[in-house]
Amino acid sequence: MPNPGRIITLLTDFGLRDHFVAAMKGVMLGLNPDLTLVDVSHFIPPQDIFSGAFTLGQTYSCFPQGTIHLAVVDPGVGTARRAMAVSAGGHFFVAPDNGLLTYVLNDQESFAAHEITAEHYFRKPVSSTFHGRDVFAPIAAWISRDIPLHQLGPALRDPVLLKIPAPVRVQEALIQGTILAVDQFGNLITNLLPDEVPHTSRILAGKREITSFRTAYGEGLPGEVFAVPGSTGYLEIAVKEGSAASLLNLKSGAPVGVVLR
Amino acid sequence: MPNPGRIITLLTDFGLRDHFVAAMKGVMLGLNPDLTLVDVSHFIPPQDIFSGAFTLGQTYSCFPQGTIHLAVVDPGVGTARRAMAVSAGGHFFVAPDNGLLTYVLNDQESFAAHEITAEHYFRKPVSSTFHGRDVFAPIAAWISRDIPLHQLGPALRDPVLLKIPAPVRVQEALIQGTILAVDQFGNLITNLLPDEVPHTSRILAGKREITSFRTAYGEGLPGEVFAVPGSTGYLEIAVKEGSAASLLNLKSGAPVGVVLR
Amino acid sequence: MPNPGRIITLLTDFGLRDHFVAAMKGVMLGLNPDLTLVDVSHFIPPQDIFSGAFTLGQTYSCFPQGTIHLAVVDPGVGTARRAMAVSAGGHFFVAPDNGLLTYVLNDQESFAAHEITAEHYFRKPVSSTFHGRDVFAPIAAWISRDIPLHQLGPALRDPVLLKIPAPVRVQEALIQGTILAVDQFGNLITNLLPDEVPHTSRILAGKREITSFRTAYGEGLPGEVFAVPGSTGYLEIAVKEGSAASLLNLKSGAPVGVVLR
Repeated sequence: MPNPGRIITLLTDFGLRDHFVAAMKGVMLGLNPDLTLVDVSHFIPPQDIFSGAFTLGQTYSCFPQGTIHLAVVDPGVGTARRAMAVSAGGHFFVAPDNGLLTYVLNDQESFAAHEITAEHYFRKPVSSTFHGRDVFAPIAAWISRDIPLHQLGPALRDPVLLKIPAPVRVQEALIQGTILAVDQFGNLITNLLPDEVPHTSRILAGKREITSFRTAYGEGLPGEVFAVPGSTGYLEIAVKEGSAASLLNLKSGAPVGVVLR
Repeated sequence: MPNPGRIITLLTDFGLRDHFVAAMKGVMLGLNPDLTLVDVSHFIPPQDIFSGAFTLGQTYSCFPQGTIHLAVVDPGVGTARRAMAVSAGGHFFVAPDNGLLTYVLNDQESFAAHEITAEHYFRKPVSSTFHGRDVFAPIAAWISRDIPLHQLGPALRDPVLLKIPAPVRVQEALIQGTILAVDQFGNLITNLLPDEVPHTSRILAGKREITSFRTAYGEGLPGEVFAVPGSTGYLEIAVKEGSAASLLNLKSGAPVGVVLR
Repeated sequence: MPNPGRIITLLTDFGLRDHFVAAMKGVMLGLNPDLTLVDVSHFIPPQDIFSGAFTLGQTYSCFPQGTIHLAVVDPGVGTARRAMAVSAGGHFFVAPDNGLLTYVLNDQESFAAHEITAEHYFRKPVSSTFHGRDVFAPIAAWISRDIPLHQLGPALRDPVLLKIPAPVRVQEALIQGTILAVDQFGNLITNLLPDEVPHTSRILAGKREITSFRTAYGEGLPGEVFAVPGSTGYLEIAVKEGSAASLLNLKSGAPVGVVLR
């Protein structure tokens, strides 16, 4: 297990207009002025834990071992939901125990998780509405100062995991998949692996039947909707220099059919 | 008084699409490559000095002593309005003298302010439209290199202060308050302190009468509008996993009544 | 020629909602943990190479010599378009060879450019859809570790340059200019130099005739549309505390006439 480094990433649904993110950064720099703080995203849709989990799952492994990932999408702040600190795959994570680490934990064969209960590490007074500033940020900073996780609270063996939609073989020649996410360009990220969808298939999405398979966004013909192996590892539905999401009027959670032949 | 550190925060209404913010950061790193630059917000509504003042007031004290806060919401750029550098409460501030430091200065018993007139510290040529890059950013960087404030220009004893709306007791049993800000989630931040509003009160906001008092956003019932002590120190009006601002159709500046009983 | 420093700037059209920008930063910090990463903009309109080129052109020279500028607006990712690393004017640049460096290269009398072909510096496996993460980010980080450009691939002597609209003297007393960009405040940035437009001229923009010349945004009269020398070096059309773009219903690419008299 690597030691914690001085990089802390931040993922929240706080947006960048208010003081929330900067307040968290100020608290962390007050505890460890040598930190390198990197924003993952603060534009997770409000309270959308799945979207946060997906984005974190796509990002954390790009960072070096020892990075501390602070993730706060926390509709249950101030209620009985637990806070946790996790060590997994050479990375550290600080988050509410609400499923936000689902992709991270699914990636790993083992992990060590501790509930965060050691109040002497919190910022005082602890508000009931902003644990990002008062609980999660200081804990992340203390981890960067080598406080071991077991000093933060008791072991937590059953973290909440979201059910991630998996492709289903509904008939001999029909797979039902799901749109997991829509990116900034309107590309539709499915939960299908490119190897599961032979190039002879027909993909049914929205009211379209897609039979083109490309290897790059720029290879599509004008107006053509096509499938492309995305950088997330999943098959995407895309349009060259346009938004497949707008054209097909689809969003996250929508079904996608694959007719094998 | 602590020495200036190497953390500089930035608050502007410049947005993040154009080159403005990066130009300021480039200028500062050219003068001091060891800086840690932290964005507070660049999404202050254009020319909204009060909103900038409120956001800065919520943020600066989360940072360690010696932090330099650079704030540029500056509708008067290039006109006769003064530029100033301030030392207050262990922090440093660089801003136009237009009220942007109102919350900061109201917090402190004393402060030292200097008008910025020492042109040899400016970036040349000084444009008449972008003092953020040409005046404020270089001054902040020079402060981080230990140039004392009195070398920047003459003492400034009468900084502009905005009038901050205070709750008014309009009748024996009626307090009139104001919405100071609306956050990213649509929570309505009032100017009322939680202690001023007993849980037996009725709160009048928009066309609603609010009689629920909660301690966390997640405690509300579905669809219920409730009051909650916010992390800003003020009472907020909120809806669980929804936007009170949308539901009540209220924004910053709107009145809020409190009927005591 | 200065050595590469440890500052890397990032300009993309990736937005800040998805994992894209953070993935690039993680890759770079994995190769060089001492980097100072600075965002120029991630809100370049999708696939708008000209807008990216203009924004980068306004920003890079504010940074100290040795800064590495990573720019990815890349509609041709995964196709035959080349990737390149450039040294120019004391700065380093990593970008697709699609015109994104047009303003930078036009500024300089000479430059050294190399095509990026040395695959052993890439992140593996290289996706066909996200070279920002797999090619450009690692190359920028390797440059910060003093890998010389000639080790990245063969010299590239004919980088793609966009045609930048220049003012045209269409009649003895009539210049036709163009709106190059619209900033966050709705100020219209023309391609006219202030010296080319005497204060006795009439400027024709949208359906307005503009005859006011000011030196600061705050000097305009209420509702007045006026010309002002912008901080970009170009003449701008502006409205005091309002948006000239909205008022005149103009955007980037629109024509502007100047009637001399």
